[in-house]
Amino acid sequence: TNQRSETFQNKAPASIKSDTLMKSAGKSLKEALLSAQSEQRITVGVYESAKIMTEDPDSVSFCVLATDEEFECDIALQIHFTLIQSFCFDNDISIVRVSDTQRLAEIVGDKAEQLEDAHCVLITNPSEGSWDEPALEKLHVFCEERRRQNDWLPEVSLPGGGR
Amino acid sequence: TNQRSETFQNKAPASIKSDTLMKSAGKSLKEALLSAQSEQRITVGVYESAKIMTEDPDSVSFCVLATDEEFECDIALQIHFTLIQSFCFDNDISIVRVSDTQRLAEIVGDKAEQLEDAHCVLITNPSEGSWDEPALEKLHVFCEERRRQNDWLPEVSLPGGGR
Repeated sequence: TNQRSETFQNKAPASIKSDTLMKSAGKSLKEALLSAQSEQRITVGVYESAKIMTEDPDSVSFCVLATDEEFECDIALQIHFTLIQSFCFDNDISIVRVSDTQRLAEIVGDKAEQLEDAHCVLITNPSEGSWDEPALEKLHVFCEERRRQNDWLPEVSLPGGGR
Repeated sequence: TNQRSETFQNKAPASIKSDTLMKSAGKSLKEALLSAQSEQRITVGVYESAKIMTEDPDSVSFCVLATDEEFECDIALQIHFTLIQSFCFDNDISIVRVSDTQRLAEIVGDKAEQLEDAHCVLITNPSEGSWDEPALEKLHVFCEERRRQNDWLPEVSLPGGGR
């Protein structure tokens, strides 16, 4: 099998898991999420996200998986994460993971149900002709660099402080 | 996006959809399924199949999706099929589709519940050191040839007559 299938098991070597990079990428992610949300370009939930990405992969710009400890007990969620990760790779969709589901939910959730299902969040593309904003652009570069290091599902640290 | 994502929508050109090939591959598939079943190397069900392939992709030799008309109304099933297809491609697992779920269920099902969930069936690898049987080998060659024609999820026709 290839290396990507083992991302959940084999963590990247400590040398390339720089805290500073993870935090900087996390700051960009929070910015990108808030900006996308103000433009209704956010999809929250594993089912809804999988639906949108499989129906129209070109409409998806970025994917976030929340893989906290709770996730490790949830086999169905793990299966979906592995399949979604594979699909994102095939369709050139940048993808990262965060370990703090609660923090992610606080940023994107405005309904109680969303807080419960923020294990997968998508940012869809802005309207045609407009550019990716700088925060999202930074995240794409971050993911590209990590992939070059064989880190196929890089972790980022979201800053605290809610919205 | 790449072409594989569109397999469900864009059928292969008629010229490469030879009935004879589909039926010959279908005969091999039935043989391979029955042989695998006699050795307990069959997994039936979307959830169980996705679980096994994501946990240990190297253990999976072949994947069959049953995409009949009923499937077209089932969005969750379509999502799973697209994700599974992507995962199989990434992990070099040969995959085909059949349009007759009932026929597939009759071949692999020995319990009532399996008849209902035969939308995805896996053949896992024989024990280490032994060879793929000829029927499975033929199917791998069939899939490889189809992929070369950009047919990423080739259809095969299972022969009738139950087991």
